[in-house]
Amino acid sequence: MSLLVCVTRRDNTKLLAKLRSLLPDVEINEWPHCSALDRVRFVLAWGAPDDLWPQLPNLEVVQSYGAGVDGIAMTLLPAHVVVTRIVDKQLAADMAEYVLTHVLAHKLRLRQYFTQQIQHSWKPKRAHQGMKVGIMGLGELGKVVAERLIANDFRVSGWSATPKSLPGISCYSAAAQLSEFLSELDYLVCLLPLTEQTQGILNRHVFEQLPNHCVLINVARGRHVNEEDLLWALDNGELAGASLDVFSQEPIDATHPFWSHPLITVTPHCAALTSIDTACEQIAANYVALINNEQIDNQVDRARGY
Amino acid sequence: MSLLVCVTRRDNTKLLAKLRSLLPDVEINEWPHCSALDRVRFVLAWGAPDDLWPQLPNLEVVQSYGAGVDGIAMTLLPAHVVVTRIVDKQLAADMAEYVLTHVLAHKLRLRQYFTQQIQHSWKPKRAHQGMKVGIMGLGELGKVVAERLIANDFRVSGWSATPKSLPGISCYSAAAQLSEFLSELDYLVCLLPLTEQTQGILNRHVFEQLPNHCVLINVARGRHVNEEDLLWALDNGELAGASLDVFSQEPIDATHPFWSHPLITVTPHCAALTSIDTACEQIAANYVALINNEQIDNQVDRARGY
Repeated sequence: MSLLVCVTRRDNTKLLAKLRSLLPDVEINEWPHCSALDRVRFVLAWGAPDDLWPQLPNLEVVQSYGAGVDGIAMTLLPAHVVVTRIVDKQLAADMAEYVLTHVLAHKLRLRQYFTQQIQHSWKPKRAHQGMKVGIMGLGELGKVVAERLIANDFRVSGWSATPKSLPGISCYSAAAQLSEFLSELDYLVCLLPLTEQTQGILNRHVFEQLPNHCVLINVARGRHVNEEDLLWALDNGELAGASLDVFSQEPIDATHPFWSHPLITVTPHCAALTSIDTACEQIAANYVALINNEQIDNQVDRARGY
Repeated sequence: MSLLVCVTRRDNTKLLAKLRSLLPDVEINEWPHCSALDRVRFVLAWGAPDDLWPQLPNLEVVQSYGAGVDGIAMTLLPAHVVVTRIVDKQLAADMAEYVLTHVLAHKLRLRQYFTQQIQHSWKPKRAHQGMKVGIMGLGELGKVVAERLIANDFRVSGWSATPKSLPGISCYSAAAQLSEFLSELDYLVCLLPLTEQTQGILNRHVFEQLPNHCVLINVARGRHVNEEDLLWALDNGELAGASLDVFSQEPIDATHPFWSHPLITVTPHCAALTSIDTACEQIAANYVALINNEQIDNQVDRARGY
């Protein structure tokens, strides 16, 4: 049996070296350099081509190279295939720090002062006072982000597809409670998984229900945002700003209107970078579990999609 | 007896209205519109002219209109005059939020990403990892700033003129321990009072002892910084950046080199703005205490100078 790495559109030199050092006796190939596809039982994947999957008759585990599985075309996989993902505690801590930093940056008008500095303009203003943060998505990441905000005196509410109950957080769920959740927020943070249901969820309808002074922080996936609707909301005073770390296409094109929009802060998908070391330890452990017929960690609910 | 307001170079309309509403039966004059200077026992002052003080034979209390007393020429006051200042809890909380925000902004490279956004440039980088913050000045403000940083997992050390012992903070004091305090910091925060001893304390000698990757955050007074030395340190790789909220002259001149320096973040003395309401409540309470021969709150040690 062998392990196939099919992580496209990036240089995998370090990843392969680390994996080979952790699994010295295992045959590890990098797609498309693999002659015996029938020996592949485990694939590490992100952005794999659709026609790969029918060529792997003995596939048992697909390990996503990321915290999400939106880089895996799950509908193309046989039902018995286990899909798993990287769960990195540092990732959650980094995400929490990113969200806290960008909430505070808006509160203290950092972007405004950076711009005034370029203009050599001295205009002191009081910080914004709003302390209510709403988090969409209360999974591993959402919970840690909420805790960090609460520790800094923010009032946190959360919205998720299914009902949840978490200490210190006002919890809302499903479409029926979305309006109530949105109606009084100062900051809206998106940490949802990307599924058919959540794609484009941050749209005109949502922006209209938020207070006009609200600021959006998207650290989930670019495709959660309807980009045209976001520009409309910012240009029509329906939203006061946005900090975006993720985009429907990355890197965003040099001509994309987000770059030069005065109310949008763009960061280059840097909120939480997966550590190759942590990821490889989990990948190797799952590969060994497969060989030993043991439980695969961090499995995804394929029916739910995350 | 009467209360004289001598707060120069600003519009005091709101301040006077608030004071008059709190002390409706008191004669309140705004310098220089005061005919009977011999009736003045209480002066609210900031930047008062030196020749005011000899004209006030019955002066008993000088209330500084700020958290510091560097706007009061204390050497010109008779020894029996009590000097007091505003102690605003919100001021300490705001200062802590400013320091945390600017430390996190450096850690997460916000300024770098703002600049890259202007250039439409996509270059993700890991956040800086340094977590050691040194605070110069462990008074009312320094303590609250330290607590906020500790709550966010930073390791905090402190330096003060006289020895202090504070929970969770490695404390250093006096000139003898300055080198040791500076030697391993990732961030240096200045919250010292401005005195003859501390003026120009942030100079080439200090910058040379800090690690080269260290970032300075000055939220105390502009005159703590030797501005030429700071530019020298940044331009020669002795310091990685500076967030400055205070300057030796405010507003800073349009031609000042700080505005356009790529490693300096300028904010317009906005870290902690005294609330007129809170300040007036303390001023009125102290005026009433003087009338009733009671203890004046928040007195300054005139020998020490803060």
